[in-house]
This record gives sequence, structure tokens and C-alpha cells, in this order.
Amino acid sequence: MTNEVGPSVDGVESEKKLSKKELNKLAKQQKKMEKKAENAVALVKENEKEEDEDISKGCYGAYGIIQSIELRKLDFIDVKDVFVNLEGHEIWIRGRLHTSRIKGKTCFIIIRQRMHSIQGMLSVGKEISKQMLKFVGNISKESIIDVRGVVKKVEQEITSCTQKKVEVHITQLFVVSTAEPRLPLQIEDAARIKEEGKSTEDSCLSVVNLDTRLDNRVLDLRTQTSHAIFSIQDGVCELFRNTLKKRGFMEIHTPKIISAASEGGANVFEVSYFKRSAYLAQSPQLYKQMAIAADFDKVFTIGAVFRAEDSNTHRHLTEFVGLDIEMAFKFHYHEVLETIGAVLIDIFKDLQAKFKHEIEIVDKQYPCEPFEFVEPALILRYPDAVKLLRENGVEIGDEDDLSTPVEKFLGRLVKEKYRTDFYILDRYPLAIRPFYTMPDANDPKYSNSYDMFMRGEEILSGAQRIHDASLLTERAKHHQIDLEKIRAYIDSFKFGCPPHAGGGIGLERVTMLFLGLGNVRLASLFPRDPRRLTP
Amino acid sequence: MTNEVGPSVDGVESEKKLSKKELNKLAKQQKKMEKKAENAVALVKENEKEEDEDISKGCYGAYGIIQSIELRKLDFIDVKDVFVNLEGHEIWIRGRLHTSRIKGKTCFIIIRQRMHSIQGMLSVGKEISKQMLKFVGNISKESIIDVRGVVKKVEQEITSCTQKKVEVHITQLFVVSTAEPRLPLQIEDAARIKEEGKSTEDSCLSVVNLDTRLDNRVLDLRTQTSHAIFSIQDGVCELFRNTLKKRGFMEIHTPKIISAASEGGANVFEVSYFKRSAYLAQSPQLYKQMAIAADFDKVFTIGAVFRAEDSNTHRHLTEFVGLDIEMAFKFHYHEVLETIGAVLIDIFKDLQAKFKHEIEIVDKQYPCEPFEFVEPALILRYPDAVKLLRENGVEIGDEDDLSTPVEKFLGRLVKEKYRTDFYILDRYPLAIRPFYTMPDANDPKYSNSYDMFMRGEEILSGAQRIHDASLLTERAKHHQIDLEKIRAYIDSFKFGCPPHAGGGIGLERVTMLFLGLGNVRLASLFPRDPRRLTP
Repeated sequence: MTNEVGPSVDGVESEKKLSKKELNKLAKQQKKMEKKAENAVALVKENEKEEDEDISKGCYGAYGIIQSIELRKLDFIDVKDVFVNLEGHEIWIRGRLHTSRIKGKTCFIIIRQRMHSIQGMLSVGKEISKQMLKFVGNISKESIIDVRGVVKKVEQEITSCTQKKVEVHITQLFVVSTAEPRLPLQIEDAARIKEEGKSTEDSCLSVVNLDTRLDNRVLDLRTQTSHAIFSIQDGVCELFRNTLKKRGFMEIHTPKIISAASEGGANVFEVSYFKRSAYLAQSPQLYKQMAIAADFDKVFTIGAVFRAEDSNTHRHLTEFVGLDIEMAFKFHYHEVLETIGAVLIDIFKDLQAKFKHEIEIVDKQYPCEPFEFVEPALILRYPDAVKLLRENGVEIGDEDDLSTPVEKFLGRLVKEKYRTDFYILDRYPLAIRPFYTMPDANDPKYSNSYDMFMRGEEILSGAQRIHDASLLTERAKHHQIDLEKIRAYIDSFKFGCPPHAGGGIGLERVTMLFLGLGNVRLASLFPRDPRRLTP
Repeated sequence: MTNEVGPSVDGVESEKKLSKKELNKLAKQQKKMEKKAENAVALVKENEKEEDEDISKGCYGAYGIIQSIELRKLDFIDVKDVFVNLEGHEIWIRGRLHTSRIKGKTCFIIIRQRMHSIQGMLSVGKEISKQMLKFVGNISKESIIDVRGVVKKVEQEITSCTQKKVEVHITQLFVVSTAEPRLPLQIEDAARIKEEGKSTEDSCLSVVNLDTRLDNRVLDLRTQTSHAIFSIQDGVCELFRNTLKKRGFMEIHTPKIISAASEGGANVFEVSYFKRSAYLAQSPQLYKQMAIAADFDKVFTIGAVFRAEDSNTHRHLTEFVGLDIEMAFKFHYHEVLETIGAVLIDIFKDLQAKFKHEIEIVDKQYPCEPFEFVEPALILRYPDAVKLLRENGVEIGDEDDLSTPVEKFLGRLVKEKYRTDFYILDRYPLAIRPFYTMPDANDPKYSNSYDMFMRGEEILSGAQRIHDASLLTERAKHHQIDLEKIRAYIDSFKFGCPPHAGGGIGLERVTMLFLGLGNVRLASLFPRDPRRLTP
């Protein structure tokens, strides 16, 4: 142990220097911080008193608030990279104290870092004092610590950690940031599988209910499962963009504040905009289309979408992330439909290839059949879906919309018949689609529109849009939409516009359904629903 | 000319078939479309009447509304790819009719496609009838057309097109979508350089003012300059993400609807949220920080940011796209500051390398010095900036904020002294920064915070954030912020949080300042300001 590399002595000393020389200058509001720093020093001093010959002096303690006093370079290593090949090496790790337990003169701790964990241990002996052991044993769970130690192979696999074949024999340990001793929920509890049919009382292990978890989302997000979910979600976005870029699409950004409720006015949030009213966009669609009318040809946009729908279900959010595509085509909207289908299949394939480990982690807490799909994507025509449903006892009219339970049932029938969890339902009845949907030229009962489904739930809604101002006006009138409110939209098509189609994908739904999470809130970092606005 | 490849005969025939067999079935609201299709047929018939032996019959006309009747495969080529190596080849192009002029028995047209254009010509003769020439000459500008023709080298460069060495000898031409004959603005006018000091009357060429352009944004966005600007902006986003991904950052999405106005309550838009009030987030910062407290370590997010500021300047928008970064660091916030600096320099370098052509296009309409920068980024300390300003005659107190004109002046001084249009101003006075800013441990008059500048204008504001709940509470109290409203935020730091810093970049400002556009609205697809909510 050399003092040059360890932050220990430096750390504590600069803390002391700070107390004497600088703290007096600090403004009134810094008092608490001062107190904390003093406590840290006091702790070390107390240990000194207790036993003058503390052989670990300077090798443990608390840094106090890291206020960027000096640029210090230490070679920290990620927990995920600590393997047996580092046997005998000295390493530094910064991580969370996941658990600690003292067994006689030995203390075992688990250090957690996102999806990974490693065991650390220290035993009173030549290098570790009783005082240091006591100090480590008293650190509250979830505190952030810096650990220095030597990597050692273990005889028996450590099942409670992700790094099963090694542990760290700790020589130094410093607290970076202290957690309050009482946590509103335990990370282990938030990560536990909820056993179907068993109430919490039946089980000897506690499971935290979703509301408590979301109330304390910062803690809930620390579970390995949450980290895996959001790594996968990050993957969905990246794959979406990359596969579209490869196909010549361009990213655009569309306004969220709009002057009029474009799609009839229901389910829209109102905003006070200086001295007038405005609304939050329910989709970027109208703007994507204007981009097409402005020759942008193939565009996508990723952004917040707002729905003021008072739906308290497992799949509705009032704010979600839309992955939106719009594309000019030459002669047939299937050029677009097939592109979107291929984009989604690219995403599914890459997720399964690149996020194997994360999918396994999620599957432990939310067990679920692996996501199956066929390539190219199955395209089912609406009348054929209706036929399939009728054959299986569902009473449904030709032009009826599908209810959520019927959609799910259809998903199961499709899965049985075609072995796919993903499919496209094409040519919806015109009557149940928005005004801007292009009617089917061969049968005006239907339209050039489609939804896409994962595990029987809708993840995308799209259509060929009407690119002709006159027809669009007529259809808007038919839907009794106030033409004045969509003037700018209609006008965009007066000066030549290529035929185009597109669709909007709900990011959280894709994540939820790909992983079989059962609740869309688990796929939203800070979910918003009619009842939840915090954190 | 073979009928198999041309959509001509097919196109018109299916139009006719449609008229007879299908149109009767179409719902009432499709009348206008029907009329249009009939007109197209009538047009061809009229030509037929006029001169029975129309040798071009079937080689021109209008498709009518493309309603996806059939999947037709034609090998369209992009205008940008038409070079002399295609001499003698027959090609199909779909593009805008930019201009057309008849000179005797010859018609010249310019076909535009985003940033590119090519000349097409047709002469009455063996293959082209008088009727066809008349038809082409009557197509309104900005209509979308399908052109079939043979590529020919030209003797003299065509200066009015981007493809200067070739033209297309047209054999077939069909209208895909007709533009109204009267355009609210001419594309050429919107693309013209505004000469400094000259009023519009002085000049013989008209220049469209910005408000008219923005009122008719779909047309304004069709200029080569607009396409170049948004290609570059797309590049900024892509480079931002790629360079961060390479550095181990993860993309997250934060809510835009929040329960309380977090930074004191000024300049925030209010939203009606079911039976209560909510607000639009002025920045994703609090949520980025919570992600850090949840161990996400290095995150970025790209999304809408809202400011209810009644500022009608060249650089303020009420809604813009934030490129936000937040990063845990080990000992000093300069670990983060240097990362952000390097990220921006990566972006500048790649933009200059990959978007040379686009930058040149923009420079023609908005001439400007090329963007200069030094690597690594210049970091100037606030007290040194104050000193530099004082040396140059500016009266300014140690803890005064910089006004916009002073910032610009400082930018010029920095440019003179250091030859850079990009620099970082570090260690702002604590008093002028938000409550969550970490005080400077060595001098509590200052803080661990920074702004970044391009051409003397701020593009990023950032800081080390206070990661300790007690100190944060004290600072919030000092700023007289209602603690109840930021309870969830403060609580996020109670359970251990690594030291961290970050910043938010305004995408439109980066685009504007990199290109020297002079007005941020030009870098927003559909800009929002206190007076503008449409289109």
C-alpha cells in the first residue's frame, strides 16, 4: 500500500485541511456539509482514541461531499470486468454497498454495480484493524463506497453475485456517499418475483407492490432487472435509428405545442400559452407529413407523445415515447408497410442477438415465453382476421373495430396458426380510422391502413395518408372536424405532395411486449398516468 | 420505349378502368378526387380531339390520386446520381417541376430533388407531339412529376442546375401530384440572399421576409438551403449520440409533464392535467440526475424542452430540442466538463468532414466565416474572463452575470486572442447560478459550473450538481424555493448518490451558430415563439 495511489490519506487530510482553512469561509447554507465532514473526521478520531495502535488508520473513512477539490486519477475497474485472470491483482472499485454481514472477525460485503455484483471481504489481522471492521460493518446499505483490494479466486462459487469465481480481499474502503439507514424499500424485495396466486402474507419473502416501487422509483430503478430493461430500451431506440438510417431516413424534430387539437379535440391536454390556449400534440403525424410535403422523403422522429385519456390500464400512459416513421412511396403503400415490418424485425433480431444477457436477467423476475416472429412479417388482411375470429366463435361485423380482448384472442389464434408473436393487420375498415386515412380504391368500405401487434397487443398504428388537399377536406368534413383548425395542415398538400404512408410505434409498449413485462409502467423511467405525476 | 416498363399506358388505363368500374362505388366524399381523375382523362381526350394522330399518346398525362391500386416496380434514380457515365441510358426520375419554359418547339424544365436539380428537355419531333409539349408547358410549378428520358451530355455547363454536365431528353412525363398554380411564395425567392443594407425595393429581385417564409414553411423548407440545414442538424444529433455511445453513455427518456415548476416557477407553461395543474419541463435535468442516483452512471437524452419566456429575439424559442448529458464522476467535475468539450469538438470535426457540401450550400444564402475551434477545448475561468473584459473597457463586477452583448464581445475577444469560436467559461459566480449548483470549495463566491459558447453565444449551461440531500435542502431554502414542490427531487439523493455533473445543449442554437444563420428559427423545422404557434 503506497500513499500515492490511495485516496485514503489524501482524502482524509484534505478533508481536515478543508475544515480548518476553508469551512469558515463557506456560506451559512453549507453548515450541514461541514457537520458531515466533521463527523467523518470524528469517526476516525474516535477509533484512534479507542485503540491508539489502529493499524488500518488512513485506510478507511468517509470522503465527505466530493466537491471537486482535486483531479485525482485512480484506475477504477468495472465489476463486470473482474474475472479470475485478475487473480492477485490490486484493483479499485466504486460501487454500492448492496449487503454486509459480520461473522466473527470477518466482514463480507456485496458490492453492486448496475447489473453486476462482486463479493468483498476483510478479516481482522495483520492489515485490518478491529476498528476498520467495525466501521465497514456500520456503513448503511446503498451507500456508495470506494474499495481497494486484491482479487482472489474462490473455492466455491458465490451464488449471490454475478462474479461467482472471484472475490476481493479489501485493503482500503472509503464512503463516497452515505445512504440513510432506513430505506423505503429494499432493493432485493423490489427485484423479487411475484408468485402468481400467492398473496404477500402467504410468502415468507416480501414483494413490493408496484405503486410503492414507482413512488420510490430511484431505488426501484437500481435493481438488476430495471437496468436490464432500460438497456434493452436504449437498444430499441438505437436499432430503430440505425436500421432507418441505413435505409436513407432522416431524423427530424416536430413541435409538441400545437395551436389546435388536430384529431377532433378529445383526449388532448390544454396548455396556457401566454395569453391564449394551446395543446400538446397527440402525435407528430401532421408534422411528419408536412416534412414529406417539403420533400424530406423518408423521415423519423423520436419524442414525447401526449394522450389525455383517463385510462388506468396496464398498457396506457398519458405521456410516452413515440418512434415515428413517415415515408413517401412511389405507387403502393405496401412499400412503406413492408419497410416498417422489416425495421421491426431487424430490431427484434438484433435485440435477441445483442441483449441475450439482459433478456435473461429480466426473464428471472418476469418469466415469459421468448418472443417469436417470422420473416418477412406476416401480413393479415382485416377481412381474413374477421373470418378467423368468426371461425373461432367470435361474433363480429365486417366493419367493427376490434376490442382489446378480441385483439388478444386474435393474437393467440395467429400465434397458433402462424407461429409468430408479431404480425401486421392490413386494410382496416375506413369507418373506424381517422379522417386522413386513404380509402381503399377497390372497396371504399376499407382503407389503406394497418396496425401492428406484438403478443396480441397493438404497438403501431399507421396508414397511407391522403395527400390531396380536396379529398382531405372532404374527409375532414365527413368527420365533422373544424376545418379552420386544420387549415395549415390541409394547405400543406396544396402545392404538390408525394403519396406517403407511415406509423407511430410506442417505445414503452415494444419494450413491455418484447419482454413480456405485463405493465407498461415498468418500461417507463418515470411513468405518467392519470393518477401519477411524480416523481 | 416499351410499354412494359412505362407506367404510362398502364397508368392511364387503370385510371380509365377505375373511372368506369370503381368510381361509382366510392363514397360521396370522394367526388373531388373523381373529378380530378376525370379531368386528367379529359385532358388526354382533349388532346386526342385536337389532333387525332397524337404520336405521344399514352406517354404523358396525370396519374390522378395514387391510391395504391397496384404494386408497380420502376427503377427510379436519384437526381444526385445522374452523371455523364449514364450517357445514353434511359432513366426514370420522380421530382418537383422547379421551372419550365417553352422556346419555340422546345420545352426546358428543371427537375428538383431536395438539394439537387437537373435539366430536362423535350422537342416536338418524331417522338414528341405538339400536344405533349403544350401539356408539359402547362404543368404548374412545384407539381410532382415522373419523367422518363435518356441521359445526354451537354456542350455547355448548365449553371442553373446541380447536375451541370448532363440533361435528360424526355420521352414520357406524368403528373403525380399537382400544385396550385398560385404559390404564396416562390422557392427561388425564399432561397435568395438578403443583401445587407438594401431594402427590397432597391433590389430588382424579391426576397421573402422571414414571417412569410415561416407562415408557408412547407414551401420554405423545400429550398436547397433548408434541406442542407436540416441534413446538418440530423448530423448533429447522430454525431452527438454516436460519440456518447462510444464513451459508454446510455440514452434515456424523461417526462415532459411534471407536477411542480422545479426551478422557482417562472417561465413555465401550465397544463391542465385531468382535474389538476401540471407543468411542462424546462429541462430534463432533475430526471437525468435521478437516473444518476439510480446508478445509470452516464446518460443522455434528446427531447423537447419548454420555456414560457416572452423573449422575441433571434435566439429564443419557446420550445426547442435539448441534447442533454449527465455523468457521474469520480473526484472532479472537470472529468465531465472535458468529456462534454470533447463531444462537441468531435461533432464540429465530423460536421466539417461529412457535411462539406451542405455547409457550402448554406454558405451561399447565409455567408459566414467558417467555424474555427481549438483542440482540446479552451477552458477560461470566469475571473479571467472578467479580467479580459475589464482590460478591454467593460465595467463589470466580480460576481456580475454577463449580458448578451457582453457575452458576444467576450466571444470576439476570445476569438482574437485564442483563434477559437468555441470555448468553455468555467467557475461562474455562485450567486447567479441555480440552487442545485455545487459551490466552489476553494472560494464560495464561485461555483463548479460552466457555460459553453459558439461564436460568442451560449449553447450549453451546466454544472456539478449538489448530490447531498442536506446541502441541497439548504441551498433550495436560500433560493426561497418551496421545498414541498421538490421533495421527490431532494429525496432522490438521500439513499446514496455519486458526484455528478452535466449540461444541456440547445440543438437549434448549435445548428444556427455553427452555420452562422443569424436566426434560430431557421434551424427549427416548425419554430415556436411567443407569437408563433402555426404551422
